Amino acid sequence: MTRRVYELAGQDDRRFSPFCWRTRMALAHKGLEAEFIPCTFTQKDKIAFSGHDLYPVLTDGDVTVTDSWTIACYLEDRYGAGKPLFGGDMARSTTYFINSWAEAQLHPAIARTIIYDVFKHIDPADIEYFRKNREARFNRTLEEMGAEQAQHGRTLQQVLAPVRNVLAGQRWICGEAAAYGDYIIFGALQWARCISPFPIVRAGDPVHEWRNRMIALYDNYADSVPHYDY
Amino acid sequence: MTRRVYELAGQDDRRFSPFCWRTRMALAHKGLEAEFIPCTFTQKDKIAFSGHDLYPVLTDGDVTVTDSWTIACYLEDRYGAGKPLFGGDMARSTTYFINSWAEAQLHPAIARTIIYDVFKHIDPADIEYFRKNREARFNRTLEEMGAEQAQHGRTLQQVLAPVRNVLAGQRWICGEAAAYGDYIIFGALQWARCISPFPIVRAGDPVHEWRNRMIALYDNYADSVPHYDY
Repeated sequence: MTRRVYELAGQDDRRFSPFCWRTRMALAHKGLEAEFIPCTFTQKDKIAFSGHDLYPVLTDGDVTVTDSWTIACYLEDRYGAGKPLFGGDMARSTTYFINSWAEAQLHPAIARTIIYDVFKHIDPADIEYFRKNREARFNRTLEEMGAEQAQHGRTLQQVLAPVRNVLAGQRWICGEAAAYGDYIIFGALQWARCISPFPIVRAGDPVHEWRNRMIALYDNYADSVPHYDY
Repeated sequence: MTRRVYELAGQDDRRFSPFCWRTRMALAHKGLEAEFIPCTFTQKDKIAFSGHDLYPVLTDGDVTVTDSWTIACYLEDRYGAGKPLFGGDMARSTTYFINSWAEAQLHPAIARTIIYDVFKHIDPADIEYFRKNREARFNRTLEEMGAEQAQHGRTLQQVLAPVRNVLAGQRWICGEAAAYGDYIIFGALQWARCISPFPIVRAGDPVHEWRNRMIALYDNYADSVPHYDY
């Protein structure tokens, strides 16, 4: 096998990076196999060869691609004969809006909700790095955010409103079938599901129903790793 | 002329509905002329024939179309030979995410920032309706929100983050040229600009630069109505 993805892993082989899940789903969408190399936060030496210090890193034969969005564009352009991830140039641009929204608004809201659970599941070698980095980012202690989990979970429901409204009118974010816009948002929900027992989406919510359809894709691919059921 | 748009108007012929601006820009994009019929909040009798009580309402010959999103889809399907508003089915679906985001997150943030200025510019006959409806919606008095304008304006900058991030990498929201995704977001900024002197975007911000490009489209179309310059 010549295709490899270097991705974040925690204790008990938990694969919990939202960005890596985007790449996992994009590869599955295109029907492309890959070997997934687990790396902890502090094992960045494993991807030093790429010149980039964030997961995922994709190697495809002689080609190295970094950054989940760039990887999606690479897969779409390189494997254009497969099912489209975007469906045209305008769709690629509007999907990039979803990408940007997820990073600016969805990810911070999920991070606040699950961060203390993440801390409890990371590799022991990462503990010091994670506490220092995340407490500086949010200007709160991990324990404070953990104590506020229910409140952050309620704020997250408001952040998910545009997803909920879209799914009231269509089965997938991208319309008739799941595509990269779906994978961006699903990656964030799968991140939470792989690392935290807190139910960020609940039965009866169209977002929960769509998430279940996403989990079922590609022979229940998202169930193939350690996760919490809710 | 057989095409008419019934749209919201305030004092001094101010045309300040974000939804109506989406329709105005979509018509200009397609090169379609229309007569614009000004209506106040309390002149809903003018659109009673449509069976709908929100502006805009489009009549195109014998066809009546309500709701700005439905109107955009109608124009794209009916006038398919013109420049595309979406660029394919997947792009239509991902653009609908932008539509949903604007209504769930962008519009409330702008409304809080400019609502007291809106109140000062609406038709005198609308004053009682507007105060009662909006104070119930936001659970604050108009005067309270007016006093908090600068604070709401700062919160709005965070809400605009995904727009700002997209525009760091591409000239238009829809990529190589403006299309309906651009008109959705521009409609919200033009709403503010037509009714409030408060600068919700400022020089040096990529969102401000893009907004100026939007204003310049179609022979400075967005400058053809009363507005504030900033």
